[in-house]
Amino acid sequence: MTTPQPFDQREFRRTLGTFTTGVTIITARAADGAPVGITANSFNSVSLDPPMVLWSLAKTSRSLAAFSESGHWAVHILSVEQDALSNRFAKSGEDKFHGVVTETGAGGVPLLTGCTARLQCKNTFRYDGGDHIIFVGEVCAFDRHDIAPLVFHGGKYAIAASKSDSDAFSRHAQPTDSSFSENFIGYLLARAHFQFYSQVRSHAQAHALSDADYFVMSVLSARDGRPAADLIGAFSYTGHAVNDALLAGLQTRGLLTIDSGPDRLCRLTDGGRSATLHVLAAAKALETDMVAKCGEWEMAALKNLLKQYIARTDPGLAHPWDDSAGYNAAA
Amino acid sequence: MTTPQPFDQREFRRTLGTFTTGVTIITARAADGAPVGITANSFNSVSLDPPMVLWSLAKTSRSLAAFSESGHWAVHILSVEQDALSNRFAKSGEDKFHGVVTETGAGGVPLLTGCTARLQCKNTFRYDGGDHIIFVGEVCAFDRHDIAPLVFHGGKYAIAASKSDSDAFSRHAQPTDSSFSENFIGYLLARAHFQFYSQVRSHAQAHALSDADYFVMSVLSARDGRPAADLIGAFSYTGHAVNDALLAGLQTRGLLTIDSGPDRLCRLTDGGRSATLHVLAAAKALETDMVAKCGEWEMAALKNLLKQYIARTDPGLAHPWDDSAGYNAAA
Repeated sequence: MTTPQPFDQREFRRTLGTFTTGVTIITARAADGAPVGITANSFNSVSLDPPMVLWSLAKTSRSLAAFSESGHWAVHILSVEQDALSNRFAKSGEDKFHGVVTETGAGGVPLLTGCTARLQCKNTFRYDGGDHIIFVGEVCAFDRHDIAPLVFHGGKYAIAASKSDSDAFSRHAQPTDSSFSENFIGYLLARAHFQFYSQVRSHAQAHALSDADYFVMSVLSARDGRPAADLIGAFSYTGHAVNDALLAGLQTRGLLTIDSGPDRLCRLTDGGRSATLHVLAAAKALETDMVAKCGEWEMAALKNLLKQYIARTDPGLAHPWDDSAGYNAAA
Repeated sequence: MTTPQPFDQREFRRTLGTFTTGVTIITARAADGAPVGITANSFNSVSLDPPMVLWSLAKTSRSLAAFSESGHWAVHILSVEQDALSNRFAKSGEDKFHGVVTETGAGGVPLLTGCTARLQCKNTFRYDGGDHIIFVGEVCAFDRHDIAPLVFHGGKYAIAASKSDSDAFSRHAQPTDSSFSENFIGYLLARAHFQFYSQVRSHAQAHALSDADYFVMSVLSARDGRPAADLIGAFSYTGHAVNDALLAGLQTRGLLTIDSGPDRLCRLTDGGRSATLHVLAAAKALETDMVAKCGEWEMAALKNLLKQYIARTDPGLAHPWDDSAGYNAAA
């Protein structure tokens, strides 16, 4: 779309929102000793030598005097776990710091903890920027922790992950005569699942467990004593035959017991639990290996997106790991 | 880690790199009429009324005079597809604009195309920022397109996606007595795949196709005439029994033919192709529905991460959609 005439503030905000940023909280100590802090995504680096950064504050902000008069301020680059803190410091309020653990930095500035990075700065320049003041500070101390940073993107909190190396994947060429290809989400989900599970399967088979055997037993290892009917219903969406015959077979092999009550509660035997935990440990090791190969931030982002997909497109399938369906009462 | 002493430039850059940004190219027209352009991630918004933005340029930049003297400059917020353009404008060189399609903006400034957003600005303030100059401009025109923006994160190009609404997912509570839960990647991959595929399956079953039947036929629909042995080998990692009996069954039912040559090339019949295309169309519709429910940027990010996972952890499995394995010769 082209520039709306007259100047459309809402569309201007949306356009600015396409520029992705991290999220920071800037803190200082007011002249009366009170801690001040404000959420800002207008932060950026400016200079390496001397080391300088900038951010902007609305001229109408009630914290303007405190930040202008303070000899120092500190920038906190928030981690992916700090969206609640970001929300708290984005609102006006007297008690932003209530219950928040702080340390004391250069010039007495309150420092927040648990951030991806912190930059303590000398309040160096203040420049006119329309309805905002641009604060430029010289960095006198900084620290960094290996926690994925929070991202602000399209008006929402987000997680970022490295873009795939298109060359690395393009060797798996796209068939040109079909609209179905390695870019189809159904293929990618199936491929990723089967690629992961093919490695779990070899461990399950070492204990003579089929895919369906393992599905049932891994769920029981998380929450024992589930009704047989619930187990059978829980896996129908996988297409694997989890049925009375399968449960009876596991019982015959001494891997689980089925009690004689009306609910026919299923419980792992010691042997069944031991076999299951062996396979689960191998699956956990695969996840660790995946983090090493793909990166911790990428793994967090992938889990985040899979959870969104699962929650938003769930046609009402069973959640076999879910404890909220009354299994606690049955256990 | 705490501040290295003496000041460690490399660690300072890494710390700044934890602040995620978009990627822009800033352009102007030099006094001699030559177009100038430079990649920058130091862009940010400053003011809404008047509308103002800023970015920083090294005092040593050979484009400093051109940007300083120009009455206007333009900021291009790059799309996820423009990483090559970003690389080109990040390097010094005489021919950055060679072969690049441009339009002409306010003040004769060259405008790039295909961007997520563009902001045309009057060159308003220039401020000292250590080894950089801070350029502040008033926005006089802007446009925006619904293409996911490119992100720069941890020193690499990235894609961002909305963070999941943790409340929406937490109703599926985590079992507290197990380290395995709905946060385990193996579960998430399996759940996402089976949830998607359970909806495809109902369409396949309407054509009396099993999961394995559908896998074979969908691959043949992309590339017909594959050797039977290759088809059988291609799916072994799925745990589904794709074997001679399955292929013979599909032949008996008139869905494919197996020729009598030594390679036993398999080809879909017209009936087989028609059934497959019906199911594939339903799967495509599911992908469209998924984009509507999860968002286009999120889908791009999910595909990106699944491709990385698949490429980086592939233990050497077959790629059944891959044309580079010699199927062209056989076809």
